[in-house]
Amino acid sequence: MSEIIVIKVGGGEGVDVEAVCADVAALVQQGYQVVLAHGTSAAANALSERVGVPARTLQSPSGHVSRYTDPETLQVYMMAAVGQVNPDIVRRLQALGVNAVGLNGLDGHLLGAKRKDAVRAIDPTTGRQRVVRDDFTGRVETVNAELLRLLLDAGYTPVVAPLAMGMECEPLNVDGDRAAAQVAGALQADTLVILTNVPGLLAKFPDESSLIRHIPQSGLDRAIELAGGRMKKKVLAAQEGLEMGVKQVVLGSSRLSSPVQAALRGEGTVISHD
Amino acid sequence: MSEIIVIKVGGGEGVDVEAVCADVAALVQQGYQVVLAHGTSAAANALSERVGVPARTLQSPSGHVSRYTDPETLQVYMMAAVGQVNPDIVRRLQALGVNAVGLNGLDGHLLGAKRKDAVRAIDPTTGRQRVVRDDFTGRVETVNAELLRLLLDAGYTPVVAPLAMGMECEPLNVDGDRAAAQVAGALQADTLVILTNVPGLLAKFPDESSLIRHIPQSGLDRAIELAGGRMKKKVLAAQEGLEMGVKQVVLGSSRLSSPVQAALRGEGTVISHD
Repeated sequence: MSEIIVIKVGGGEGVDVEAVCADVAALVQQGYQVVLAHGTSAAANALSERVGVPARTLQSPSGHVSRYTDPETLQVYMMAAVGQVNPDIVRRLQALGVNAVGLNGLDGHLLGAKRKDAVRAIDPTTGRQRVVRDDFTGRVETVNAELLRLLLDAGYTPVVAPLAMGMECEPLNVDGDRAAAQVAGALQADTLVILTNVPGLLAKFPDESSLIRHIPQSGLDRAIELAGGRMKKKVLAAQEGLEMGVKQVVLGSSRLSSPVQAALRGEGTVISHD
Repeated sequence: MSEIIVIKVGGGEGVDVEAVCADVAALVQQGYQVVLAHGTSAAANALSERVGVPARTLQSPSGHVSRYTDPETLQVYMMAAVGQVNPDIVRRLQALGVNAVGLNGLDGHLLGAKRKDAVRAIDPTTGRQRVVRDDFTGRVETVNAELLRLLLDAGYTPVVAPLAMGMECEPLNVDGDRAAAQVAGALQADTLVILTNVPGLLAKFPDESSLIRHIPQSGLDRAIELAGGRMKKKVLAAQEGLEMGVKQVVLGSSRLSSPVQAALRGEGTVISHD
């Protein structure tokens, strides 16, 4: 059986998607089965501005910040994730000889999620807590691994957009790192590579010489405390993946010239079972 | 083997997508293998206006009018077709218990097209001919029927957006009726249903009592002369489908309450081999 690698590439500014696609092409050429999951933040923010639906955030009482996805923002988010970023990656991979197939969580019920139907958030003007009821954000809970295996075994390379399907078949904005972890877990992937804009988990952020090269599963709780901002979610996603049976997770830098191949060589933070 | 039905639903204003989806659900329930191809015109026009990229048309010297798809319009077209209309149909089908999977022509090289790289067009202000070189429109020439069969045989219902892949892996705007005909031909479909906003081909447009109930393949050249506007393309698509081996094509009305089931009962213009 082929080794399965799930890669998460972020949707932020300055990510070199072409370098990631070149790595995917090399891996597919070598016989690996690859699933590429992507983010969409920069494209969604740019489109929000263009159509006059300003991107807004929600801050939870614990300090966690997320995109406020009201119904109008959800439409913009879908256009960016499904209608821009996803086909752009598929096109690049096709040009490199990879038979990519773009999917989102609605397709074949690929990503099933539970909507957070009442979100407590801090009102930025008053500083008071309020309950937001029109936020279409969810957490991925199920993955249709059979659909991914069907495509992988037939020689296709799935490219997965961060859009899930809720209990009422509604589209939901989901965190791309957690979605990639769920996909990797459902496929019992050999490796999950999560690319970030730093070299990996840093003991003393932003000091890059403090890179933590290896974390055993038993050290993850401490690592989660150590991690700040977006990195906390990535370490949580790594933990989720390992608990579901992924053999190893690498938090790698998207700034290297062959970012995925570098991560697979162990450049970054390697997280594995004890 | 299950009977295969390919359905084309237009993307114009006032098309009752929910009624088409309900018919698809009933057919899938009865054991038919269904592929649903869709248009995107109204959504693309609305989005064009919203992002300030006015929808423009090209008129060929022979009078044929098409969407002028310059690079900026192509982006808008993709967002509408792939990021709005397609997932909206997938979501509706999922809610009706159909395990739909959205695809566009880039996915698995589903629709291969040849770009019309220099289009002669009439300049609307001067009335003179000019050559347009930045139009990303193409004609579907190849279909990855294996991908559709893989999904159909696994119980999925493909939903196909009118976006094809050119020779340089570039996305191309393609005519949805011709794309549906190519899909039906490649699958050797039993029936291709093309829904329109009239009851079928009318001998004396717009007199609906002049509906032509049946056209044998040998009568198609005359029918193409008779047809005007958008209907001419639909009759040409029907001819293309029949020539590729589709058993019958029905031009049906999208205004009926069960439009696909009505077309399958023969309501509309039935076109079949002599």
